Amino acid sequence: MTVSDAPQITTSGEDRLIARYFRPLARAPGAFGLSDDAAVLEPPSGWDVVLKTDPIISGVHFFPDDPPDAVARKALRVNLSDLAAKGASPAGFLLALALPPTISEHWLAPFARALGEDADRYQCPLLGGDTDATPGLLTVSITAFGLVPHGTMVPRNGAQVGDHVVVSGTVGDAALGLRLRRAAPGSPVPAAPVRDHLLARYQIPEPRTGLAEVLRHYASAAMDISDGLVGDLAKLCRASGISAHINTAQVPLSEAARSMLEIDPGLLDTILTGGDDYEVLCTIPSAHLADFRSAAAATGIAVTIIGQVVEGMADPRFTDAQGELQSFGRPSFSHF
Amino acid sequence: MTVSDAPQITTSGEDRLIARYFRPLARAPGAFGLSDDAAVLEPPSGWDVVLKTDPIISGVHFFPDDPPDAVARKALRVNLSDLAAKGASPAGFLLALALPPTISEHWLAPFARALGEDADRYQCPLLGGDTDATPGLLTVSITAFGLVPHGTMVPRNGAQVGDHVVVSGTVGDAALGLRLRRAAPGSPVPAAPVRDHLLARYQIPEPRTGLAEVLRHYASAAMDISDGLVGDLAKLCRASGISAHINTAQVPLSEAARSMLEIDPGLLDTILTGGDDYEVLCTIPSAHLADFRSAAAATGIAVTIIGQVVEGMADPRFTDAQGELQSFGRPSFSHF
Repeated sequence: MTVSDAPQITTSGEDRLIARYFRPLARAPGAFGLSDDAAVLEPPSGWDVVLKTDPIISGVHFFPDDPPDAVARKALRVNLSDLAAKGASPAGFLLALALPPTISEHWLAPFARALGEDADRYQCPLLGGDTDATPGLLTVSITAFGLVPHGTMVPRNGAQVGDHVVVSGTVGDAALGLRLRRAAPGSPVPAAPVRDHLLARYQIPEPRTGLAEVLRHYASAAMDISDGLVGDLAKLCRASGISAHINTAQVPLSEAARSMLEIDPGLLDTILTGGDDYEVLCTIPSAHLADFRSAAAATGIAVTIIGQVVEGMADPRFTDAQGELQSFGRPSFSHF
Repeated sequence: MTVSDAPQITTSGEDRLIARYFRPLARAPGAFGLSDDAAVLEPPSGWDVVLKTDPIISGVHFFPDDPPDAVARKALRVNLSDLAAKGASPAGFLLALALPPTISEHWLAPFARALGEDADRYQCPLLGGDTDATPGLLTVSITAFGLVPHGTMVPRNGAQVGDHVVVSGTVGDAALGLRLRRAAPGSPVPAAPVRDHLLARYQIPEPRTGLAEVLRHYASAAMDISDGLVGDLAKLCRASGISAHINTAQVPLSEAARSMLEIDPGLLDTILTGGDDYEVLCTIPSAHLADFRSAAAATGIAVTIIGQVVEGMADPRFTDAQGELQSFGRPSFSHF
C-alpha cells in the first residue's frame, strides 16, 4: 500500500497490465503464470544457483528516450553478461518495474515483446516480479539466476601468476558509442556504418552466454567488463592478489573503433577505461590454453590474449607496442 | 556506466561504501565477501528455491522521513513475509540500492546495522547486490530466497471447498497506523499506547517465518496479506477457482484496533481493506485442522478461523455477527 493516495489506484489495473504484457512471457512451471506470490526454481540435484541483480534506471543507465525494446534488452542482458562470465547457464529471472505516469502501454507493449524475445533467445524465462507506480524514475530491476555444477562458479579471485589474460569480442565500442550518443549537436559524426555499429554496441549488449561452459572448464578467474577494461582488470587482480601486464596493441578493436582511433589517437583512453563493453575478461592457465582456444572457437565467439598475470599487488601495467607505459585519466567507473 | 557525467563519480567511493557498511553483513560463503560479480546459493539436494522480489520506494512504500532502521527492516521483511506464506525457510537475499545525493553515511550506517540485525534474526544472510547513485527516489530493492523440499511450496491456488479460512495475528493494525501517520496536524489522536501500537505495526512488519513449516504441512493454499484482507482473499479465491464466506466478527483485531473501532465503527472498512498487514492468509482442510492448530500454537503465533471456502466464482462474501452482508468502498489496493 502506498503512503499517499495516488490518483492512479484502481482495483484491477495492475493485474490487467501483468496479465496482458507479462503473463505470456511466464511459461516456466515455476512462474505459476504470475498468479502466485512467489516463484520457484528447481535446481537439478548437485547444481548451485548463481544470483545476480543489476537494476537500470532511466537517465542513469539508459537515456530516457531510448526505445523500449532496447531498454528491455539491456536490462536483461547486463545480468546475463555476469552469469556468462561466472560460467553459469541462464535459468530464469525476476522483473521488478517502477513505472512513472509517463509510461503508457505504447511503451510497455514493445518493452514486453523484446523482453520475451530475449528470454527465448537466452533460454532464461520470466519467473515472477513486481510492478509499482512511482512518481520517480523509470527503473527496470532484473534479478537473474544461473546454474553451475556444485562448486564450479568461475570466481574473480582465482587468477594465478603466469595465466594468460584474455578478453572476448572487441573492447571500447560501447564507450565510443556512448560518446557519440552524448555528443553536442553539430559535433562531427563518423560515417554511418561506424556510427551505427558503435551506437548499437552501446545500446544493446551481447552477453557471452555461449562462453559460459568454456569458462567453467578452463578459466582460473573471470568477470564481465562493465566498468572499463582498465578498472575491471584492476578489480580482478586485487581480488586474486596478483598483478598483470597488458599489451595495449593486442587489445582487440572493431573496425569501427580502429577508424575512430586513427582520427583521434586520444580515444584509446576512452576505449580502455570506458564502460559497457559486457565482454568477458578472464585468466587462462597455460596448460589449458590450447583447449580453451579450441573450445572457444567452437562457440564462434572471438577470444584474444592481451597479456599475462604477473606477481605483485600493483595495479596492472599497460604498455603499447613500443613498450611505452600507458597511464589513464580515469582508471575506472564508480557511482560514488 | 552512467549516461551523464555525474559529479559524484570517484574511483573508490562505491567500493568503500560497500566495504564499510555491507561487507560485514555478507558472511555467508556464497557472498564471497561481496568481492565477486555474483553470489551463489547452494540448495540442499531435493530442495526448491522460492524467489521473491518486492522493492520499496521512498514516498511510495515508505515516508521519506521514516528512520533508516525502519526502512531497512521493512525492505527485508515484506519479502520474508511472502516466503513465510509460501512455506519457505529464508536462505539469503540480494540488496540493490538506488541512493539519491541526499542519502549520507549518517543514514546508511543505521540502515545497514538494522538490516544486519534482521538478517541474523531471520537467518537470512546478505548474499550480494548492487549500489547506484540516482537523481531519483531512494529505492531499496530486495530479492529474497527461501527453501522448501521439492514440490512443497504452498500455492495460492490450492484452496478446496470446505477448507477453513485462517489468518495469523491481527488484521487492520497497519492500515490504522498508516491512517494516523497520514492524519492532518490537529486531527484527534488516540491514547499513546494505541497510537504507538498501530504506528509500529505499520512501520515494521512482523513476517510469520515461524509458521512456514506449519503451512507447508497443513495448508492447502496461502499468501500474505499485503494489499488488504478483502482484496487478497479475493485473489486467493480467483486463483483457486472457489469462493469464501467470512464472518467479520471473527476477524482477529488487536486491543488498539478495537478501541479505534469503538469510537468510529466506519473504520471496519479500513481494517478489512487496508494494506500492510503482512499476516498470513491460508486455507486449512478440516482433516488437518486439529494438527494445524496445535503446530501453530507451538510457534506462539496466533491463528484464527474467520470463515470457510465455498463453491462458486463470486468474490468472497463478508457478513457480520448478525448475518448482514458487508460491502466495501475499495475492495483492494492496486498500483494502477
